[in-house]
Amino acid sequence: MKQRRCINIGLMGLGVVGGGVARILPQKASSMASQIGFPLVIKRVLVRDLKKPRAVSVPSDLLTTDAKDILDDPDIDVVIEVIGGESPAHDYILAALNKGKHVVTANKEVMAKHGPELLAVAKEKGVDVLYEASVGGGIPIIAPFKHDLTANKITAIHAIINGTTNYILTKMAKENLDFGAALEEAKALGYAEADPTNDIEGYDAAYKLAILATLAFGQTVRPADIHCEGITRLAARDFRYARELGYTIKLVAIAKEVEGTIEARVHPAFLPEGLLLAKVDGVFNAIYVEGDLVGKVLFYGQGAGALPTSSAIVADVIEVASDITAGVGNRWRSKQSAGMPIRPMSSVETRYYLRMIVDDRAGVLAQIASSLGRNSISIASCIQKEANASAKTAEIVIMTHLAREAGMQKALGELRELSTVKEIGNFVRVEGMG
Amino acid sequence: MKQRRCINIGLMGLGVVGGGVARILPQKASSMASQIGFPLVIKRVLVRDLKKPRAVSVPSDLLTTDAKDILDDPDIDVVIEVIGGESPAHDYILAALNKGKHVVTANKEVMAKHGPELLAVAKEKGVDVLYEASVGGGIPIIAPFKHDLTANKITAIHAIINGTTNYILTKMAKENLDFGAALEEAKALGYAEADPTNDIEGYDAAYKLAILATLAFGQTVRPADIHCEGITRLAARDFRYARELGYTIKLVAIAKEVEGTIEARVHPAFLPEGLLLAKVDGVFNAIYVEGDLVGKVLFYGQGAGALPTSSAIVADVIEVASDITAGVGNRWRSKQSAGMPIRPMSSVETRYYLRMIVDDRAGVLAQIASSLGRNSISIASCIQKEANASAKTAEIVIMTHLAREAGMQKALGELRELSTVKEIGNFVRVEGMG
Repeated sequence: MKQRRCINIGLMGLGVVGGGVARILPQKASSMASQIGFPLVIKRVLVRDLKKPRAVSVPSDLLTTDAKDILDDPDIDVVIEVIGGESPAHDYILAALNKGKHVVTANKEVMAKHGPELLAVAKEKGVDVLYEASVGGGIPIIAPFKHDLTANKITAIHAIINGTTNYILTKMAKENLDFGAALEEAKALGYAEADPTNDIEGYDAAYKLAILATLAFGQTVRPADIHCEGITRLAARDFRYARELGYTIKLVAIAKEVEGTIEARVHPAFLPEGLLLAKVDGVFNAIYVEGDLVGKVLFYGQGAGALPTSSAIVADVIEVASDITAGVGNRWRSKQSAGMPIRPMSSVETRYYLRMIVDDRAGVLAQIASSLGRNSISIASCIQKEANASAKTAEIVIMTHLAREAGMQKALGELRELSTVKEIGNFVRVEGMG
Repeated sequence: MKQRRCINIGLMGLGVVGGGVARILPQKASSMASQIGFPLVIKRVLVRDLKKPRAVSVPSDLLTTDAKDILDDPDIDVVIEVIGGESPAHDYILAALNKGKHVVTANKEVMAKHGPELLAVAKEKGVDVLYEASVGGGIPIIAPFKHDLTANKITAIHAIINGTTNYILTKMAKENLDFGAALEEAKALGYAEADPTNDIEGYDAAYKLAILATLAFGQTVRPADIHCEGITRLAARDFRYARELGYTIKLVAIAKEVEGTIEARVHPAFLPEGLLLAKVDGVFNAIYVEGDLVGKVLFYGQGAGALPTSSAIVADVIEVASDITAGVGNRWRSKQSAGMPIRPMSSVETRYYLRMIVDDRAGVLAQIASSLGRNSISIASCIQKEANASAKTAEIVIMTHLAREAGMQKALGELRELSTVKEIGNFVRVEGMG
């Protein structure tokens, strides 16, 4: 065994997060060295463009555009992957593990789509792949699942894990903005990307939920297993009704065990305003976890940003570095899995908020109620407002009792066919987190 | 090295928490064995009374009243200490470490008073002492400080870490109960002990804060370093004024770095009702942590109870058990310490709520204001109410701007001397967590 004098790191990616890591690691080097026993040294940095001006000063001889300079360097012990996106990041991580390097990644897409396979390769090669930064920025959540909560049978996760959409929804709620205006503001502040699809359509939240659910239930939950709806359908008037009814609208990521199946979904939901989760505003994230022993625990903090994400990445690096120092290889401990099937969305039960424009005349509400009733949906409360006197239409808002998604979709189809129903304004699920 | 077939545990204490552990460990045995590689076996259980009827069924031949049966048994790898209190628990933990046994403890008093010394002995002996259950029940908080947040310079902790007092304060706030009535209710529900001194005087919270501050700042903070006030002075009328002014009263445990010193204190405080911490009700706990990278993170959950505490203990047991399996000894990584002095309470700055009964006549408020002014305390707002028409007294409530404790104490002394001030009803610090 070679005489070790330091732990060499290959950093892949020097964007917002990579730049943060490149700045933080040297700053914290001396205190980290005292914890680990060896200094951490960034030996190479993979970038796409050597000449791009950067906020962080990295010696130019460290920069390379060739991934092989990191992957094929036997002196590099740890690879930090902060390129993002599925490809080529996935190939690089796989290659690094196969070369016997530990990997620390912030990549939710890769971990959601390929995590179980990468963890298996890492185990085989006697190294670790750590990914605390992939969910919730700096909020400790992956490690608590792997360690602190490991004695629990996890029964449910309710989370707000996309800061961009939470910022937009908070703006819509507090300032009565329309979706488009709130999105523009999020873009202007750098909270939303030029192409915001991944965030606003819920894909980013679904990746993160897949990672959390896989950890929580000890079995692979893929993004494709998760019913996913974004926030683009929400209108300012939905927020006004929500407030009137005592609710807040959030993009929730839910995974829970229901009758021996795993229910996993990402969609906007009405949350009673008294819930802690309903009070998570702006770019903050929160993850509510329920276990058979621990009861309910909540983790809250900034879900993104260069510094919080660096906090998680550097912690993971210190973790593998001290394992290297201690001579420990792979520490992944797989949980026993019950092998539960994914519950089809049609079988999911929630309450619903339903807003529609109808003819303002006698008998219309009875028509709607009977259509809902035929599909086993009972009405908990109803608000009817005169929407447009000249058009003789009214807006009706219905809150249902617990109903099955299949019935609700069938009822919505029937309502659309009614000549007296001019428009289905929106329908949003209601979560009590019970 | 002997051929290992299982990991043997000595359980010290079979009360509420010990009974929980004795029930949970066998229930979770198979899934834990698959994680660790070896089954966990409770080999001996230390009790005070062999004949006491117990809710949990433990084979009677496991029970012993002699600690030596655990401490001197070379086959016992891990000692779980859940006796509580300083003595003899401290002696047992020390003896176990000296015998080369790993220790898992829920003992906040021992860890607050002797933690740094015990960790040093453990390091010397190549074993670990883990104490996740000592703060916040099942809420992951010790491990996040040691691992997830380790890259951060921690700047502040604001916590609600005593469930008993939080239950009492929640009752007082929501049902206008007096302290005595709320305490009786907490006792009836088993949330307060027959002798509730440790909880209601803030000592329990101070122990926990000492543990957290020691971890956060990487230097020893003792219970004696912490200014500690309990909740017995609070009256129903303080809660009414708090509500009127937009605040909630909580017993807060605060440790923060201020101008190169460590400020550490436990006392009731007015919290603006919009803060997440102000919404932590009943027996729940929450710990707000601020770090230079991660920003603000919050951990929330049940701070006590047999199951949540067992969740933390069993997680710690799995942690040491997998270290035993991996052949790893002590994993304690000490942080570099800045060696900051403890800030004297007299130098602490907060805002204050001040309630008093005064003569209801002209010039009294001017007298009070000038006394406060002499001590550099400026008034932010003032409510005056006619308290007692026949006695011609009025109640005055003053909210101050930021002021120094020394000045406030001096002003309180002066106010007590004023003939027009009949009674200082209460004074409570106001925390904005800024």
